[in-house]
Amino acid sequence: MEDSTRRPNLTKPIRCIVKLGGAAITCKNELEKVNEENLEIVSSQLRQVMITGSGSQKVVGMDWSKRPGKPEISCDVANFENQTLLDSSSFVVVHGAGSFGHFQASKSGVHKGGLHKPLVRAGFVATRISVTTLNLEIVRVLAREGIPSVGMSPFSCGWSTSDRKMTSADLSLVTKAIDSGFVPVLHGDAVLDELQECTILSGDVIIRHLAAYLKPEYVVFLTDVLGVYDRPPSEPDAVLLREIAVNEDGSWSVVKPALHNMNKQVEITVAAHDTTGGMVTKISEAAMIAKLGIDVYIVKAATSHSLRALCGEVRGTIPDDWLGTIIRFVDKEIAST
Amino acid sequence: MEDSTRRPNLTKPIRCIVKLGGAAITCKNELEKVNEENLEIVSSQLRQVMITGSGSQKVVGMDWSKRPGKPEISCDVANFENQTLLDSSSFVVVHGAGSFGHFQASKSGVHKGGLHKPLVRAGFVATRISVTTLNLEIVRVLAREGIPSVGMSPFSCGWSTSDRKMTSADLSLVTKAIDSGFVPVLHGDAVLDELQECTILSGDVIIRHLAAYLKPEYVVFLTDVLGVYDRPPSEPDAVLLREIAVNEDGSWSVVKPALHNMNKQVEITVAAHDTTGGMVTKISEAAMIAKLGIDVYIVKAATSHSLRALCGEVRGTIPDDWLGTIIRFVDKEIAST
Repeated sequence: MEDSTRRPNLTKPIRCIVKLGGAAITCKNELEKVNEENLEIVSSQLRQVMITGSGSQKVVGMDWSKRPGKPEISCDVANFENQTLLDSSSFVVVHGAGSFGHFQASKSGVHKGGLHKPLVRAGFVATRISVTTLNLEIVRVLAREGIPSVGMSPFSCGWSTSDRKMTSADLSLVTKAIDSGFVPVLHGDAVLDELQECTILSGDVIIRHLAAYLKPEYVVFLTDVLGVYDRPPSEPDAVLLREIAVNEDGSWSVVKPALHNMNKQVEITVAAHDTTGGMVTKISEAAMIAKLGIDVYIVKAATSHSLRALCGEVRGTIPDDWLGTIIRFVDKEIAST
Repeated sequence: MEDSTRRPNLTKPIRCIVKLGGAAITCKNELEKVNEENLEIVSSQLRQVMITGSGSQKVVGMDWSKRPGKPEISCDVANFENQTLLDSSSFVVVHGAGSFGHFQASKSGVHKGGLHKPLVRAGFVATRISVTTLNLEIVRVLAREGIPSVGMSPFSCGWSTSDRKMTSADLSLVTKAIDSGFVPVLHGDAVLDELQECTILSGDVIIRHLAAYLKPEYVVFLTDVLGVYDRPPSEPDAVLLREIAVNEDGSWSVVKPALHNMNKQVEITVAAHDTTGGMVTKISEAAMIAKLGIDVYIVKAATSHSLRALCGEVRGTIPDDWLGTIIRFVDKEIAST
């Protein structure tokens, strides 16, 4: 296993790891359908933030594939000849599966292992086909926007688990891609498992490992709601949690807004609507990242709030008009002095 | 670099490495178009050969993606419950690019390197998008046929070159996938290069490295012509070379049919129509594989001849009614005794 305390040999530091939540970039109620509108806005925001000086104008696209109904590929080489390489800061993108992959994985029980069973083996193949289809789609949308994105499937990269816990991840491949000027695009994937033969490695777990190794300045989770609430966001009295403090022992508490009830209550309420391993898992994973001293922002995708989070604008004092959840480490010793 | 003389830790030997030639599985004159008819026949032949006892009947498909125009995914779990895991012999599939990738690579000069140039970087991204699109398509067709195929992109697997020559290829990832019962599907790809920053790694070079490491029983190149000819196959007098003998020093000569003119002439004539680095490169690569003691069959895809070659039926005496080119090592010391 990679020693996650060792800093990799990067020529420049990683600015941000972005999670494109499955619910934000796919249509949750329609099987294998990308939410193109959201994905395009997300890509545009990423390009503005990554490529210094690109402003609101598009840079030259990098997806030279044939478009349906068009006989020719449009690629104007002259555009590139006049272009200097814009300075792009280092980002890594990880996306969830949303309406891709889940059906195939749950139908076959890939997460429970047992590759020797015909159904599980078929489900493994089917899950990978579905999630790599989404990965390719995302890589293409990012490339069209001018982001030098390269798909890196965890299974192909040799990431694997033992008893569902990550054991091996050759992160040097990811760092080499970053150092060559690319934006790696990873995703939740079906992988081999030493004990139970196979399992599902989620995008959130991948993010945590990347964060521990790459030590980005901050991590942004783009979701389909404004952030983390004290109860299901559909309920009328749901309160958006603005700031969560993480302690040395990994426990966390809501700092803002001041809640009348205790933290325990929030935790339970959140857990109650956690049907897909959603919010509590997300807060736990985010807390583990925050414990490393890396700020985590959970924010609604394709909004002015997500753009500000991606820019790093909310790193210091949280602006009053910014909506989202910030999860950060509180060093008690420093705080008390 | 992997020590290609060391045998990998495989639980059972590799039977065959198959190259799906770009010209055989894509429409060469139409940009980014798969030759679906050919690809389906090729997949069906591979399934018949790989999965013992599957005969001419289909096994249960493993591509559970949504089909265009259909709201539901069809996956009958019950079909799998009644199925025992068929014994599949170990195959590796490598495919070329055909009408995918070439446009993007040549337009930008990815093979010449220079990732710091905006055009090359964009071309690298665009080439990878195009070849991984084809890879996903091939993986899906194989999976639909019931072959447990998994896409493994050389770039994602960490394969790289130095001065365009392969330096690093983590073949343990490929062997792990095989040992887990999968059929890895690799492809020609844009990769990083230590000296010139990037280049194109061709499917033929990948095959040679896989063959040296995995020591398969035989290697089959599926192409769009019957085999190797003494001159462009479109010429009326073109003669199909049935058997080529490779010597210890890597030189080769035509054994069958007995040609009136000398071998030298053949070599030159072949070279003359070698516009895309085609036949001479192919014979040279094949000769290097044959030198390892591994038979190479070059045969027209989706024919009865390709099925016989894939079965290993032509391993001993070459049947008179089999059309194709066999390239094999001749150990002079053994031959003379």
